[in-house]
Amino acid sequence: MTRWEPGARERLVVAAVDLFTEKGYDKTTVTQIAERAGVTRSTLFRYFPDKRDILAAGQETLSLLLTEGITEAPAGATPLEAVAAGLDRVSDAMGTLNRELGPLMKAAIAASAELQERHVLKSVGLATSITAALIARGVADPTAHLAGELGVLAFTRGYAEWSESDKQSERPLSYYTAAALNELRVASATLG
Amino acid sequence: MTRWEPGARERLVVAAVDLFTEKGYDKTTVTQIAERAGVTRSTLFRYFPDKRDILAAGQETLSLLLTEGITEAPAGATPLEAVAAGLDRVSDAMGTLNRELGPLMKAAIAASAELQERHVLKSVGLATSITAALIARGVADPTAHLAGELGVLAFTRGYAEWSESDKQSERPLSYYTAAALNELRVASATLG
Repeated sequence: MTRWEPGARERLVVAAVDLFTEKGYDKTTVTQIAERAGVTRSTLFRYFPDKRDILAAGQETLSLLLTEGITEAPAGATPLEAVAAGLDRVSDAMGTLNRELGPLMKAAIAASAELQERHVLKSVGLATSITAALIARGVADPTAHLAGELGVLAFTRGYAEWSESDKQSERPLSYYTAAALNELRVASATLG
Repeated sequence: MTRWEPGARERLVVAAVDLFTEKGYDKTTVTQIAERAGVTRSTLFRYFPDKRDILAAGQETLSLLLTEGITEAPAGATPLEAVAAGLDRVSDAMGTLNRELGPLMKAAIAASAELQERHVLKSVGLATSITAALIARGVADPTAHLAGELGVLAFTRGYAEWSESDKQSERPLSYYTAAALNELRVASATLG
């Protein structure tokens, strides 16, 4: 299973988010990020072709974990149960670092139009991964699309709540994503 | 009510889409678009600050029409009935030009990563407008978000089908968006 391992890549992400928060995204250079992370510029470019890719870091891993969890959900699982299994898989792979990055990334994104666009594209990419994994399970098309949107809304909401939760709390990300997904499931019955 | 009137703005959009399709997005210059539309470069820049804004043309109008239709839906309308009223308002304002642009825009977008990003951001902007208009009607938050996503999926699907439909057909856009919205409503009962 894919895991986020502490190492150069993680140090680069933490350094970048720190600097984006301190100086703003536009005023942060790639050289400063590499220096802060204690790696060379060429090491940075090996991980991230472009400065803006740094905040999208982990998207590929996220998509992979979601897809794995959905694919391996029991055959009888409903579409939303499969999505919940994908979110559980993501939760298993996310540790304290991921949780602490939440508020910092939020601040950096709020301050930059470019990062906002990047963030939106990332969310849409995740929805596409969920939809594709459900279609591969035989879920019909409009249902799969809808479940993809619900999965992203649940991840976004759950991740925000987990990031902002009491640090002493031992509740994993999956506690919050499952609650958000359930709330959306209930809401879907009130669409009319 | 806002309408798409034939004029410089529309000629610019048609010229741009034609050129994007013929030459590709990257190889089309602003000067060529202005020439083809029979306007000056400064007229073009009055309407569109940036080349990529041309294909996002109409987004603001779309958002406005959706919001108007949702806001003015009867007090007893369910969230999805209000969204349908918004889509009907859009349909009333869209004529043959909008329909014929569909396949051309699709081809231009398929050929350009930048336009794909722009298109995704446009869709997310529409979802946000629908959600905000529903919240203003007193719809609770997760339901409003969900209905926003359904509205955009229904618009995207309905617009694609309308654009590709038999030109002799007199069915308006709203016929296709209503069918798509209903399909999504039915699908929402199969999420599990």
